Amino acid sequence: MEPPIGIFDSGVGGLTVLKAMRRQLPHRDFIYLGDTARVPYGRKPAAMVAEFAYGITEFLRAKGVDGVVIACNTASSAALPELAGHFPIPVWGVIEPGVESATRMTRTRRVGVIGTKGTIASGAYQRRLEQRGLEVWAHACPMLVHIVEEGLAASPECELLLHHYLDDRADIDTLILGCTHYPVLHDAIARVTGDGVTLVDSAEALAHAVRGSLDPEAASSHRGRIVHYVTGDPLAFAHTAAVIGEVEGEVIQLPVTELIALQEKAPSAVEAAR
Amino acid sequence: MEPPIGIFDSGVGGLTVLKAMRRQLPHRDFIYLGDTARVPYGRKPAAMVAEFAYGITEFLRAKGVDGVVIACNTASSAALPELAGHFPIPVWGVIEPGVESATRMTRTRRVGVIGTKGTIASGAYQRRLEQRGLEVWAHACPMLVHIVEEGLAASPECELLLHHYLDDRADIDTLILGCTHYPVLHDAIARVTGDGVTLVDSAEALAHAVRGSLDPEAASSHRGRIVHYVTGDPLAFAHTAAVIGEVEGEVIQLPVTELIALQEKAPSAVEAAR
Repeated sequence: MEPPIGIFDSGVGGLTVLKAMRRQLPHRDFIYLGDTARVPYGRKPAAMVAEFAYGITEFLRAKGVDGVVIACNTASSAALPELAGHFPIPVWGVIEPGVESATRMTRTRRVGVIGTKGTIASGAYQRRLEQRGLEVWAHACPMLVHIVEEGLAASPECELLLHHYLDDRADIDTLILGCTHYPVLHDAIARVTGDGVTLVDSAEALAHAVRGSLDPEAASSHRGRIVHYVTGDPLAFAHTAAVIGEVEGEVIQLPVTELIALQEKAPSAVEAAR
Repeated sequence: MEPPIGIFDSGVGGLTVLKAMRRQLPHRDFIYLGDTARVPYGRKPAAMVAEFAYGITEFLRAKGVDGVVIACNTASSAALPELAGHFPIPVWGVIEPGVESATRMTRTRRVGVIGTKGTIASGAYQRRLEQRGLEVWAHACPMLVHIVEEGLAASPECELLLHHYLDDRADIDTLILGCTHYPVLHDAIARVTGDGVTLVDSAEALAHAVRGSLDPEAASSHRGRIVHYVTGDPLAFAHTAAVIGEVEGEVIQLPVTELIALQEKAPSAVEAAR
């Protein structure tokens, strides 16, 4: 049997990635780490988030995974590519696949991206899109994560905030949902942006990219297993996760101190990213 | 020297109460517990929150406090009065003082209260206000906690949401800020409600009530010490807490598993509250 793939996120948002990964790789086992003791990452300094990502990747590697998916845009933009260079196993981020997907989809070559403050401030999407010769409109939407986690995807607050964030957008034909929580808001966003804008779901794009970089799955009757580690309360995790979908598999409490201890070994390559 | 007073909250919001308490009791030591591994409490089931409150009170008692302040409206409404009946030390909640303060202030006897979903759904404020013969307008404002924690108190999002939550209010002359985060939004709320509405800061009301129930402080040159326990990451706590004000004193990481273990001893009186 193949080793599991590790996936991590600041909380429950990465479950959208886990769901997409399972559709692509139904026979693989996954270890999901939700860092709910330190959620949200969105407005924390990039250096702090890069250090979190380092400790978590070390933890997952010690659990025997043969690759790690950073299912969090804020962490991907804060920690990559430096983190990937340090580990002997693949570390996939959510940004590159979203950028590639948007580049393929756009006709007008004017692309938008929305995400947390940290993701947008890092310029990680903008830089990569501009390197491909695209015009970019980027906008931070700090409240949308909370709209999702409060179960308010179909609320007046959600509509109000989406109009606030999106009504003044540039004339784009493609919009990257640059936060793993946003697929939950897909339909609400589509209603605000209308038919003229194609939405890029970065969770789906990432799952495609990971599958493409692995050997094809052998035919098997083994249905992949999932184990979740959460730094916060397992019960609270399951409760919040219900806004994304069912949590399948065991949920184990992981003291955040274990991760903090691993962070102390962060190499200068990660330090330099700060 | 007198024993410390314990204060707890789901996260950083209770620091508004700690600040008010220190103004009232400058010589007392305080132990603050921020349950940041399980924040937010606002939409979690009352039974779950009551159990959290029980474990935390046990923890603080073991640290030698001679009273516990529940500096969280959601937890106060979920756990009181049952919790107070179980412990041999006083347990103060934030609701009763806010209700008393509003009752004194209103002229028209029409009072409003805003808070999290959990606080408003519990009916804890409404019941007590109606028992005093007041007319009550109550409204859940689930996004305002996140506005505060994201540092967006002076943002367009904040203004937008406050108008959404408050423009259709009943004809009240007094409004209870029924969440310890809301004092940070005091001025923004006052701009929306105008001069005709007096705001009741439940943090101030609670601090007054606690001081009133204690022996007067002896003159002393001792400046009270503060120790913080946080179930999440101390660094992340300090970062988020900056939206409320400076975190003074040591910050200690407390594994949430310690609290979960204490919860298992919750007596039937607390169970019955569910």
